[in-house]
Amino acid sequence: MRCISLSGFGFKSVSSFFNLRALSFTFSSMASSEDSLRRALADKQSAVEAQANSVRALKAAGAPKPDVETAIEALNALKLQKASIEKDLQAAVTGAADGSAVSREAFRQAVLNTLERRLFYILSFKIYRGVAGLYDYGPPGCAVRSNVLAFWRQHFVLEENMLEVHCPSVTPEIVLKASGHVDKFTDLMVKDEKTGTCFRADHLLKDFCNEKLQKDLTISAETAAELRHVLATLDDLSSDELGAKIRKYGITAPDTRNPLSDPYPFNLMFQTSIGPSGLSPGYMRPETAQGIFVNFKDLYYYNGNKLPFAAAQIGEAFRNEISPRQGLLRVREFTLAEIEHFVDPEDKSHPKFSEVANLEFLMFPRKEQTSGQSAKIIRLGEAVAEGIVNNETLGYFIGRVYLFLTRLGIHENHLRFRQHLANEMAHYAADCWDAEIESSYGWIECVGIADRSAYDLRAHSEKSGVALVAAEKFSEPREVEKLVVIPVKKELGLAFKGSQKNVVEALEAMKEEEALEMKANLETKGEVEFYVCTLEKNITIKKSMVTISKEKKKEHQRVFTPSVIEPSFGIGRIIYCLYEHSYYMRPSKAGDEQLNVFRFPPLVAPIKCTVFPLVQNQQYENVAKDISKSLTAAGISHKIDITGTSIGKRYARTDELGVPFAITVDSTTSVTIRERDSKDQIRVDVEEAAAIVKEVTEGRRTWEDVWSSFPHHSSVSADADD
Amino acid sequence: MRCISLSGFGFKSVSSFFNLRALSFTFSSMASSEDSLRRALADKQSAVEAQANSVRALKAAGAPKPDVETAIEALNALKLQKASIEKDLQAAVTGAADGSAVSREAFRQAVLNTLERRLFYILSFKIYRGVAGLYDYGPPGCAVRSNVLAFWRQHFVLEENMLEVHCPSVTPEIVLKASGHVDKFTDLMVKDEKTGTCFRADHLLKDFCNEKLQKDLTISAETAAELRHVLATLDDLSSDELGAKIRKYGITAPDTRNPLSDPYPFNLMFQTSIGPSGLSPGYMRPETAQGIFVNFKDLYYYNGNKLPFAAAQIGEAFRNEISPRQGLLRVREFTLAEIEHFVDPEDKSHPKFSEVANLEFLMFPRKEQTSGQSAKIIRLGEAVAEGIVNNETLGYFIGRVYLFLTRLGIHENHLRFRQHLANEMAHYAADCWDAEIESSYGWIECVGIADRSAYDLRAHSEKSGVALVAAEKFSEPREVEKLVVIPVKKELGLAFKGSQKNVVEALEAMKEEEALEMKANLETKGEVEFYVCTLEKNITIKKSMVTISKEKKKEHQRVFTPSVIEPSFGIGRIIYCLYEHSYYMRPSKAGDEQLNVFRFPPLVAPIKCTVFPLVQNQQYENVAKDISKSLTAAGISHKIDITGTSIGKRYARTDELGVPFAITVDSTTSVTIRERDSKDQIRVDVEEAAAIVKEVTEGRRTWEDVWSSFPHHSSVSADADD
Repeated sequence: MRCISLSGFGFKSVSSFFNLRALSFTFSSMASSEDSLRRALADKQSAVEAQANSVRALKAAGAPKPDVETAIEALNALKLQKASIEKDLQAAVTGAADGSAVSREAFRQAVLNTLERRLFYILSFKIYRGVAGLYDYGPPGCAVRSNVLAFWRQHFVLEENMLEVHCPSVTPEIVLKASGHVDKFTDLMVKDEKTGTCFRADHLLKDFCNEKLQKDLTISAETAAELRHVLATLDDLSSDELGAKIRKYGITAPDTRNPLSDPYPFNLMFQTSIGPSGLSPGYMRPETAQGIFVNFKDLYYYNGNKLPFAAAQIGEAFRNEISPRQGLLRVREFTLAEIEHFVDPEDKSHPKFSEVANLEFLMFPRKEQTSGQSAKIIRLGEAVAEGIVNNETLGYFIGRVYLFLTRLGIHENHLRFRQHLANEMAHYAADCWDAEIESSYGWIECVGIADRSAYDLRAHSEKSGVALVAAEKFSEPREVEKLVVIPVKKELGLAFKGSQKNVVEALEAMKEEEALEMKANLETKGEVEFYVCTLEKNITIKKSMVTISKEKKKEHQRVFTPSVIEPSFGIGRIIYCLYEHSYYMRPSKAGDEQLNVFRFPPLVAPIKCTVFPLVQNQQYENVAKDISKSLTAAGISHKIDITGTSIGKRYARTDELGVPFAITVDSTTSVTIRERDSKDQIRVDVEEAAAIVKEVTEGRRTWEDVWSSFPHHSSVSADADD
Repeated sequence: MRCISLSGFGFKSVSSFFNLRALSFTFSSMASSEDSLRRALADKQSAVEAQANSVRALKAAGAPKPDVETAIEALNALKLQKASIEKDLQAAVTGAADGSAVSREAFRQAVLNTLERRLFYILSFKIYRGVAGLYDYGPPGCAVRSNVLAFWRQHFVLEENMLEVHCPSVTPEIVLKASGHVDKFTDLMVKDEKTGTCFRADHLLKDFCNEKLQKDLTISAETAAELRHVLATLDDLSSDELGAKIRKYGITAPDTRNPLSDPYPFNLMFQTSIGPSGLSPGYMRPETAQGIFVNFKDLYYYNGNKLPFAAAQIGEAFRNEISPRQGLLRVREFTLAEIEHFVDPEDKSHPKFSEVANLEFLMFPRKEQTSGQSAKIIRLGEAVAEGIVNNETLGYFIGRVYLFLTRLGIHENHLRFRQHLANEMAHYAADCWDAEIESSYGWIECVGIADRSAYDLRAHSEKSGVALVAAEKFSEPREVEKLVVIPVKKELGLAFKGSQKNVVEALEAMKEEEALEMKANLETKGEVEFYVCTLEKNITIKKSMVTISKEKKKEHQRVFTPSVIEPSFGIGRIIYCLYEHSYYMRPSKAGDEQLNVFRFPPLVAPIKCTVFPLVQNQQYENVAKDISKSLTAAGISHKIDITGTSIGKRYARTDELGVPFAITVDSTTSVTIRERDSKDQIRVDVEEAAAIVKEVTEGRRTWEDVWSSFPHHSSVSADADD
């Protein structure tokens, strides 16, 4: 029995170089054990000092040698205990009990080395020493990216009949003024006062706190708690607060140790100028969403003036980071895939919610975060029913995102949906969840799924003066009571002459409450004082001057601003996490080296199949070329390798690219097909080979099924693959 | 017999509203007929004036009434003849004998109206009144774009095993300094001296000449010839020459009629700043090619250090046009798909050339252009054999581009490959051909296919100091003769003391020719005068001071800079021309209106299929939904329309989006499938419908074949489609 099926291209039965499961500690439990260790260390330090004093006292008093030796032995024992606590504390602060921070780094370096050597990515403009935060996708990386985007289109756009659009990156200022980016899309920056080098203020403070916590074992539990509090609240600090902390801790510029300027905001958008006049400022878009919002009216019309509907966009977005760090995770130009699902705010149910309601996965609701608990497995249907997730549509997208990520090869144990805390969310947002993927950098936000209410459409309505609204047509007109204020112009004209117009306008502008109060007063007192702001004075309104009444009216429709639910995917981050989740090492057959493998599912694999002649020989080469032609015709991306390198080396080369299948030509009538992770091989006719690879690659047949249908190839000769 | 097959979704048997074939005049024949008309007009004008004088003379002399009347009749006859010539001239200058410039405009407007109404494109940021030169792809346009790009990837990247990369748009200055864009990527601009409004200098001159030629029928044939010469040489005019012409013709600012500044260059790149310091200027890339060139070394290594290989990139490029015109054809942000095929300059043969050698299509070689002939149909194999196309690899790509464009639906009669004239080509280019597509704007450059020799790699090698070269390893070492210059330092030191180093360097830097001459002179005269530029003087070199000899050396490889052959596709322009080539109108059945149709091949169609219940009815709706599910599972993009609109209206709606097939549910067991252009319908079982649509959509089966295999559906009820 084979255990590899399409969905089984996961973590099963493979001993990974770096077991990611070991990272599933919780940050709160870590902090508490760290505190007790700091206290134990302080106690032990006191004990060592006391014992050292008594040794000195014994020596000074000329005590007998055995007594002194006993005291010294006790001192050494205490020192050893202290060293042991120090080691534990060191381990605790650097991440995990077995010192896995070191292995995290080593694991990441192993992945990055393979990725870089095989050109999954390249530092952009490398021959000119590159630019921080800009990376190219090399050939296999570019293919992975295309595959991820094609699957995204299939899984979201096609499956949900979304309206996909493609808008420019160059955006005029007014659009980003309306969205708030011109004023608020900033990070706080400090400058080295002598060299002018710029740094992100929060990064310097974060580095200081981490360094202190990790390397300075002498700080008290109280100081440690304070530093941890700073780290936890880093994102909430104002410019002044950040500046105060930097001064308090005496933080200086890295490398030069020069004093730093006060923090000030730096806008993260790349600015440019549209046209030659220099009078039309523009920016490279920081997200693709605005292109959809400004088109709402046309898209709503295109959808037959019906809600709900979703628009989608895949495209590049830009953030001029102050000083990019975290390699491929924080870059200055990146691919976003965004969905804006427009929905009636009074009905956020979703007709297909039942299709995802039974999914169960790691969720980390607000309550669990604030009470120090950890993420837990929840059934999605329950989360919505209990109000943990705000509504069905939001829940539906959380479920679809879960399916998308796990089908790509993201491991479910290292994927969680974390709800934003109240202080993380914009004031207008109804609810917000991040799909976070665990990697060697920790939990990384890869998809944000937010119910942004009517905020964006309202902002653009106000700025542009174009109503971005929807209407619900009633099947039958509905009767509604409406307040009607009718100024009696003749009377008002007589009383106020030239000021009549101002009075009329002021009466008509009254809010319902105010008008009802006037009506009551006029009925009881006959007249009432009324402040007209355009005249800047009170006037007297008499009963004859205005009629105020409630009237019943028939309405045929309800006009409203739709809510928008926005799943937003950082494609580059997902791909990077996928690399880490797919990577493992296995020993070569001789056991003399470790070989790199990416266990990409066929859906994602940059190349689906390699074709090798077993030995260099014209006949085999011709067969290989024929198979290659069939694969091209079938649209299967593949590589043909007719070099004279050993078959083992050639297998290792393709394993490193995550190629799931290899066809080896060792006769002119039949060939073998090898599966990457199991290294199992079957024997098939030359003519069948391409079709079988196509079937397993496209997921229409499992390797398990193929394995049970064809003769197995003995590994004596051909499994010389390592 | 049906005549619609996959390749037959062309222009056949459809009466197009605007017959594009009528545009196939040649510009040179037009100019010559125009000249003779101008001369005839001038002659007739003189005759009219002469006759008018004689009428006046007869009247003054009191001639008999019949004589005067006869003379007036003759005058009127001459006036009529003059008016007729004027009409012909008007027609000649506006484009074609039947006045088709007007129909061109009308045709374009009809296409644009349909495209805009159905959201194929949207003026970007429309609610803020848009930005010139920026357009969105709305839902159907975005789907067409995705389909074109997917086919490009299949046809080029997969079929030719190219290395696809994805690089950022933000590019540091040094890269574009090396490529020449910082210094030379400019257009000449003039400013309205009072308002500061900017214009492209050549556009104003062009407008002036065209307006004069088209509207001023009084200008002489000589003036007309001069203006036509200006138009023909517009691209070659220097800043000073342009300025002189603008002054000569007294051209002023449009609208205001204010004087204009002298022309000055404006760089067309969007400039920005990378990082917060303001010290790292950057630009939005004007093309994607540079990202490939700077990665040559890594890509060559990835390809096993073997030539030839091609790298490819699809991505956005940016040009900050001074004042964009020509709607969707000249925009500020656009999608490019570029291929850089690296090849040994000494061997530009192509192993697959025979696969395209027999293609025949319209080519417009340099010779035909300069001799005033028109484009002609040439067999590609002949063009290469006769040296019209420089080499096989260039020819191979011309053939592949032809196949790509025609398979998309570009009509072969309105596609030509035009060779660049000597003055159009960069000095380093070996040969260059543009794929031009004829549209209502005339012949539009949509793909450039250039042999750029070693220029780009050399430019980046020099700027970066990193050698971008390839090596040909010899199977056996080759013996080569090399000149060896060995300065005798002891002698030189004695003679030149402190200047010894300069002399040694100058001797070693001699070119082969120079060294051989020195050797000859030393042997005959014993000494020779030698200029050392670092010393700025002549010195005397004696025979004892240097040995110059030819030595035989064994070389194991040849190191060289590869040539690059670059097919570069303007995807937006191709798509726009495709819209024009695919558009036609046909009368509704009642004959009371014209219906719009796009005859997109299924490959390109934004939606492959629509599903309608014939009448609103729960049973039919359920069948429609089941078929929709099967289509989704098969990955066929489709639309389900369950509105109560008449079936005719629903067909018309999908025809306007170019949907090739419609499934109409008129029973619960079988349904009809309708083909868009023929409007023919077959009847198939409900269960088969999705599979059949998939087969014809993916080109695995022709409609002709399907038509002959299934019962035809009588059109009595269901062909109420118009």
